[in-house]
Amino acid sequence: MNSTVLSRRDLDFLLYEWLDVEKLTARERFAEHSRETFDAFLDVSQQIAERDFAPHNRKNDLNEPTFDGTRVEIIPEVAHALRVFAESGLLGATMDAEHGGLQLPHAVQRACFLWFQAANTATSAYAMLTGGNAHLLLAHGTDEQIRRFVHPMLEGRFTGTMCLSEPQAGSSLSDVTTRATRQADGSYRVTGGKMWISGGDHELSENIIHLVLARVAGAPAGVKGLSLFIVPKRDLATGERNGVTLAGLNHKMGYRGTTNAVLAFEDAAAELVGEEGRGLQYMFHMMNEARIGVGSGAVALGYTGYLHALAYARERQQGRPVAAKDPAAPPVPIVDHPDVRRMLLASKSYVEGGLALVLYAANLLDQPSPENDLLLDTLTPIVKAWPSQWCRLADDHAIQIHGGYGYTREYPVEQFYRDNRLNSIHEGTDGIQALDLLGRKVTQGGGAGLALLLDRIRATAQKSELGAPVLAACDRLAATTAKLWAAGDPAKALVNATAYLDAAGHLVIAWMWLEQADAAGDSAGDFYAGKRLAATYFVTHELPRIGPLLDLLDSGDTLLLDLEDAWLG
Amino acid sequence: MNSTVLSRRDLDFLLYEWLDVEKLTARERFAEHSRETFDAFLDVSQQIAERDFAPHNRKNDLNEPTFDGTRVEIIPEVAHALRVFAESGLLGATMDAEHGGLQLPHAVQRACFLWFQAANTATSAYAMLTGGNAHLLLAHGTDEQIRRFVHPMLEGRFTGTMCLSEPQAGSSLSDVTTRATRQADGSYRVTGGKMWISGGDHELSENIIHLVLARVAGAPAGVKGLSLFIVPKRDLATGERNGVTLAGLNHKMGYRGTTNAVLAFEDAAAELVGEEGRGLQYMFHMMNEARIGVGSGAVALGYTGYLHALAYARERQQGRPVAAKDPAAPPVPIVDHPDVRRMLLASKSYVEGGLALVLYAANLLDQPSPENDLLLDTLTPIVKAWPSQWCRLADDHAIQIHGGYGYTREYPVEQFYRDNRLNSIHEGTDGIQALDLLGRKVTQGGGAGLALLLDRIRATAQKSELGAPVLAACDRLAATTAKLWAAGDPAKALVNATAYLDAAGHLVIAWMWLEQADAAGDSAGDFYAGKRLAATYFVTHELPRIGPLLDLLDSGDTLLLDLEDAWLG
Repeated sequence: MNSTVLSRRDLDFLLYEWLDVEKLTARERFAEHSRETFDAFLDVSQQIAERDFAPHNRKNDLNEPTFDGTRVEIIPEVAHALRVFAESGLLGATMDAEHGGLQLPHAVQRACFLWFQAANTATSAYAMLTGGNAHLLLAHGTDEQIRRFVHPMLEGRFTGTMCLSEPQAGSSLSDVTTRATRQADGSYRVTGGKMWISGGDHELSENIIHLVLARVAGAPAGVKGLSLFIVPKRDLATGERNGVTLAGLNHKMGYRGTTNAVLAFEDAAAELVGEEGRGLQYMFHMMNEARIGVGSGAVALGYTGYLHALAYARERQQGRPVAAKDPAAPPVPIVDHPDVRRMLLASKSYVEGGLALVLYAANLLDQPSPENDLLLDTLTPIVKAWPSQWCRLADDHAIQIHGGYGYTREYPVEQFYRDNRLNSIHEGTDGIQALDLLGRKVTQGGGAGLALLLDRIRATAQKSELGAPVLAACDRLAATTAKLWAAGDPAKALVNATAYLDAAGHLVIAWMWLEQADAAGDSAGDFYAGKRLAATYFVTHELPRIGPLLDLLDSGDTLLLDLEDAWLG
Repeated sequence: MNSTVLSRRDLDFLLYEWLDVEKLTARERFAEHSRETFDAFLDVSQQIAERDFAPHNRKNDLNEPTFDGTRVEIIPEVAHALRVFAESGLLGATMDAEHGGLQLPHAVQRACFLWFQAANTATSAYAMLTGGNAHLLLAHGTDEQIRRFVHPMLEGRFTGTMCLSEPQAGSSLSDVTTRATRQADGSYRVTGGKMWISGGDHELSENIIHLVLARVAGAPAGVKGLSLFIVPKRDLATGERNGVTLAGLNHKMGYRGTTNAVLAFEDAAAELVGEEGRGLQYMFHMMNEARIGVGSGAVALGYTGYLHALAYARERQQGRPVAAKDPAAPPVPIVDHPDVRRMLLASKSYVEGGLALVLYAANLLDQPSPENDLLLDTLTPIVKAWPSQWCRLADDHAIQIHGGYGYTREYPVEQFYRDNRLNSIHEGTDGIQALDLLGRKVTQGGGAGLALLLDRIRATAQKSELGAPVLAACDRLAATTAKLWAAGDPAKALVNATAYLDAAGHLVIAWMWLEQADAAGDSAGDFYAGKRLAATYFVTHELPRIGPLLDLLDSGDTLLLDLEDAWLG
């Protein structure tokens, strides 16, 4: 029986038949690895995800963490799952061997981690945050900080958070007011309130290492005045509580198993990461990783929703073909009804397209070069936002395919939807990603990032039977981008930025489908036929959506700028 | 301070300035009414909705009905609210005075009831179901049945349900297996299991009157063998329990305050409604009303979501305009950000457009004629499905506009989304509505319904400055419809029926916006400017979505028919 968590067959296709990650083992960094070790980590990931993560996914949802004023209670399955995960070594999957890492390629690590995100997104979040925290410190911390903070994280003893937002400063980090005061001994004290801190407090680990954005006295206004601090929950030497207290837990629509905290820092002992005033720059290192992680999480939730819907549609018998005349004929499986097929095929195109994109992005990380770095930088807002919207739609379709049953909590798909809803919000909303893409990524370096992206897309499209509309879309996107920025007026150029993100996102996924169709070639078998089918679907049913979006952008429409707020009601 | 439940200003505009419902008082049926009585019912609806319904909306969600094996426990606020509602007389708002009704026009009743649906959709559902039940019996029951069942409903003593679905027969009523056996005295006994019965059991009323679809022994297969029965929970004379037991409650993603039951009928005393074999025909009377009610409920939930989002966007300060350079400048209200405005304006266009449509439909009911009946029949699948999709999107936008806060249960918008998610499922899924529209409504009578609809749309568009693209869309929809049916092959004609519903729906709402812009004229003031703005938005940003949909339909694409299920994965 096939897994309803994720498809190993698809991962194998993407990793080995398409991206050919085996060739990475020719690189010194991955020389110890082979197809066998990659497979072993994929196997163990599926095994742990299905055995230790998936079974408590609903229990997580029904039994949120609670706070009695003293400690946070979490169902015991979470600690157990995280312990097994840490023991597998996967937390340091991509890290250097000298720090206890496995030096796995990012593409393989990403594929492994998707199993956990699909099986239990709330429990996997603790691991994802800890990994991101450790990566940041490996890149910007001192050897001493790495030893004291990162190594215990990789051993599963400590967990990590990122503390950016404040109640009045979510998307707008320039308004962060938490302040840090330098002490005579070179250490710091941090005071302020932080909001939306996932994994912000719990008893799952001996210690929680908070990475906190704060403003040193006298620092300039805006993001340039932000510095980054390590603030442990407990003193590493004495185990005594630091000045970090849990002011309360947030209660969400989904993602309920992950504690999400309001934290009060009061004169908390802290140490600086790197240099003062560069906090946001360091944090972006973690945020870019987190954004790809969010996109992956959205793919994972959409993928498992799709697999559940597909299994249900094959099993559930109801209705007859529209042309059938005999009401006494037996009902058919609902997968035979065109509208159910439409939702399934659309979902397949979203989740497999999204999966290809996140693995493609991870594979760029494995082959660093100025060109690949630029391409990844350009793609990041799409990797984050596109799956958050469209793989969420796969979960929405999964509810609809299940009908009334899908709307009940007896079936898992409504939870997938609720969990996935967060992905369009955290780590930068879709609207923020749109501004990042059109306002920064496609303009910087004289438009080099967009030119490179379109070159890559065109190279794929030129050799594809399905390529003509994709080539046309590339030309249109280039022309639209140039036209938007011709006057150099950011307010006007960016007024319909979301339409731009939507159009660019669909073009990128069309590219991912041409790539997959190319890798499938004319190979025999249902799996490859499915890849060709979904590629055809995406190019013929989905890509045309971008026409009206580009028309709107080309028209120079500024309705959203020109209106008066009072007209809204 | 403006209400965040619904906009009385908008209702007044639509009812009085656009539909001119005052002129209905020239009809004999409404002769006792006047603007003053209409206003009085609108006033009292808002008052009761805000005072007795809205305050327990979240409590309803957090405290679902429970069943201890003996009785169903519901928070006491529900019974109180329903009592106040019954006392207002609104349950029989449109019914004949001889039965205790108020003979209000449907358009006014609809506007009144929207207040309750927006304030507390779960509590209002009990009233909606009872009203639908009573309407059916008024149309098809005997005088005796009306006296015994309908009158106590209007007095608030009894409530009603509709029992169609069974575990194996949701969308496909031809598979209903509940059976009825005729007794010597002319009464019947009903045995079988029914599923998804809203209001199916509770202690809110003295008795529950179930309307049950069942098959009399020897009846033909399919829907033609279905008859309709009245099955009271308790014997009217003795008060003893009938053979109807609660087998369990369903637990849903939203709509949690409405009991939703699995009912077991075992040798339950029943009486026939009308004639044997005409059950589905009678039930459609109730279902058409219910479908308009579902569309209205979707509008109501989207509308209140929009009003909450608008209030939040004006209050919440964050970020600066993209062109601003000074990070020390104070933040602006987020309503100033174009992407927030995009979501607000889109939502406004959906919820006010949807509201116009449901009131237009109700107004057709108030002026029965062969033409109006045909138009309403044609519009019904759109009235049901369009708000279920797009006003739900307004709730989705409302979450996004609230950011992280909107995703928490501290704010009401996530509940609006969850509640609204049901509307695309119950009373016929969106996919079923699409088949109804393209397979039945636009083809019957030689296409008279579509021709009439397009005539009405064209008449409006021809006098509008915004009319050109709407006229073009009318021509395209007519041509596409003809092309789809040219070969007379239902399987091929209907394969992309959902795309057809989406296109027709957006065209109809564009029409509703031209109508509103026309009614607003060039009147001064923010309210009218808002109507013109939203009309412009809908025609320029939304209507173009139908281009790719009609292109797909015109292409004769049959991808969804041709695929093999095994290719899906």
